[in-house]
Amino acid sequence: MDADQLRAALSTVVAIPVTPYGGDGWVDTQAYARLLERLVDGGIGVVTPNGNTSEFYALTHAEARLATELTVKTVGSRAKVLVGVGHDVPTAVDAALHASEMGAELIMIHQPVHPHVSLAGWIDYHAAIANAVPEIGVVLYVRSARIGGAELRELGARCPNVVGIKYAVPDPVRFAGTVADAGADRFTWIAGLAEPYAPSAWSAGARGFTSGLANVAPEISLRMLAALRANDFPAAMKVWDLIRPFEQLRAASENANNVSIVKEALAQLGLCRRDVRAPSTVPSPEDAAAVTDILKRWALR
Amino acid sequence: MDADQLRAALSTVVAIPVTPYGGDGWVDTQAYARLLERLVDGGIGVVTPNGNTSEFYALTHAEARLATELTVKTVGSRAKVLVGVGHDVPTAVDAALHASEMGAELIMIHQPVHPHVSLAGWIDYHAAIANAVPEIGVVLYVRSARIGGAELRELGARCPNVVGIKYAVPDPVRFAGTVADAGADRFTWIAGLAEPYAPSAWSAGARGFTSGLANVAPEISLRMLAALRANDFPAAMKVWDLIRPFEQLRAASENANNVSIVKEALAQLGLCRRDVRAPSTVPSPEDAAAVTDILKRWALR
Repeated sequence: MDADQLRAALSTVVAIPVTPYGGDGWVDTQAYARLLERLVDGGIGVVTPNGNTSEFYALTHAEARLATELTVKTVGSRAKVLVGVGHDVPTAVDAALHASEMGAELIMIHQPVHPHVSLAGWIDYHAAIANAVPEIGVVLYVRSARIGGAELRELGARCPNVVGIKYAVPDPVRFAGTVADAGADRFTWIAGLAEPYAPSAWSAGARGFTSGLANVAPEISLRMLAALRANDFPAAMKVWDLIRPFEQLRAASENANNVSIVKEALAQLGLCRRDVRAPSTVPSPEDAAAVTDILKRWALR
Repeated sequence: MDADQLRAALSTVVAIPVTPYGGDGWVDTQAYARLLERLVDGGIGVVTPNGNTSEFYALTHAEARLATELTVKTVGSRAKVLVGVGHDVPTAVDAALHASEMGAELIMIHQPVHPHVSLAGWIDYHAAIANAVPEIGVVLYVRSARIGGAELRELGARCPNVVGIKYAVPDPVRFAGTVADAGADRFTWIAGLAEPYAPSAWSAGARGFTSGLANVAPEISLRMLAALRANDFPAAMKVWDLIRPFEQLRAASENANNVSIVKEALAQLGLCRRDVRAPSTVPSPEDAAAVTDILKRWALR
C-alpha cells in the first residue's frame, strides 16, 4: 500500500454506484456492469460499491460480496474501487478481507450501526477493521458530530492505512475544526454529503466529494470538481445551482428518496429499472415528472 | 397464533437479556443460560434475545441465531421469547423463520438501519417481514418520530399478527397521539425506553415496558410494574427514584454505556464477564465504583 498515492487518488469525485435490480427483485449484474462502465467512461476515478446510495443496508452480505466482485472485475485498473463494509466487527473484517482478496485497493467503513457508542469504542471498532487489512487503504465514514479531531488523530496513529475521511455531518464549522485538529495532510478529506456541501467543505480543506449524481451525469460532477480545483467558487456555485432541484428532490422527507430519484433518472435514460428496496419506495408521479424536466434541462433527454 | 393471548402476554416487563462473552471474546452460552434462568426465576414473563441491550448489532448473524436457540431452549414455556430480527429484508425474514421454527412465539422487528426511509417504505419493510411468519406474533420497534398512528394503523390492517408496539421516541405527547391515532386496543403498547419512561408512557396507555435493569434486579422492575398496574403512581415514582442513578449512568454520553453498566453490575454480582464489544467499552473505574454503591443501596451486595 502506498498511502500517499491513495490519498492523492481520493482527491476527486468519489462516486457511489446504485445497485440495480432485475424484474425478479435481485441484483441485475448486467445493468450494474453497464452503470459502472458509464461511470468510468465518464471520467470517474473512484467508485464505491456498497455505499448508502448502493442501498448497502438493503443488501444481504452475499449480495454485497457480489457487488464487490463485479465492481473490481468491471472497473479493472481504470478507477480505484472503494468497497463499503460495515455491521458487526467480524462481519466487517470478513468483507474487508474479501475486498482485499478480490483486488480492491480501498475500503470504506460505514459508521457503526450499534446504538451504544463510546468514543474509545468508536476508535476500537474502526481500528479492528482497518488493522485486519494493513495492505489496503481505509476511508472512514463519519456521520456523528461526536467524533472530532482527537478521535481521528488517535485512529490515524494506530492505523497508518487510514488515508481518507468521508465527513458527513452538515456543519462547516465542525468540519473545519475537525480538519484542523486531526491534521489537514494526514487524511484526504472528502465532503461526504455530495455536491451540495462540496463548495463549503472545499473552502475548509476538502479535496474530494462523494456523489450519487455522478451515476446520472458524471460530467456535471466533474465540472464541479474542476471548478473547485481551480478555486473558481463562482463556477462551482453555477454547477451547484444547476443540480439544486435534483438534490432537493433527493433530500426531501429526511432523504426518503435519496436513491429513488437517482434510479428514476437512470430508468428514464433507459439504463436500469427504477426499483428500490424497502424501506425506500419509487418516487411519486409528480417527482418522476420533475426528474424528466431536470434531465431535459441538463440536455440528457 | 392467538393474538389476544399474545397481546395480554406483552402487558408486562419485557426484559432484554445481555449477551455475555467468554474470555475468548465469543458468546458464553453457559453464562447466557444462567442469566436467562435468573430472569425467569425472578418472575420475568417476556425475554428478548437480540435486542439492543443484547448488543444485536455487534453480533454476527450466526451468533444471533445461537442466542435465539439458546433462549427458546432455556426458557421453555416459562416465559414468552420475543426474538429481535433486523437488517435487510431477506436477512430479517430468514431470522424470523428461524425463530418460528425454533418455537419462539414472537419476534421484534428492529427499526430499519437503512438511511433512506419513506413512510410507505417503512410499512412495506415491516409488512414483508411480518407476513413471512403469520403463525407468530410481531412487535414493532419504533424509534423514529416520523412514524405516527396512520402508518401503524395501516401496518396493523395488513398484518393481523402485529400485536405490539415498542415505542422508543422520548416524547410523551407524541406517544399519546400515536396511541390515540393507531388504536389503544389494537396493539399492546410497550414503553420502549425502559423504566425511566414507563410511568409517563403508562399514563397514556402503555401496558408494558422494556427493561435492561431486569438483568440485574428483576424484582425492582416487577415492583414498578405492580405499582403501575395498581395505578399507584407515587409508588412507581419511588421505584423511579431508586433506579435513577443506575439509569443515568447508562444514559450518559448518548447511551455510550447503556449495556456496559448492566454488564458491570452483573460482573460485580459474579454472574458473567463485564466485556462488551466495540463500539462499546467497559465503564471507567469511577463508573464501576458508582455501580458498586448502587448495588449496595439495592441490597444486592
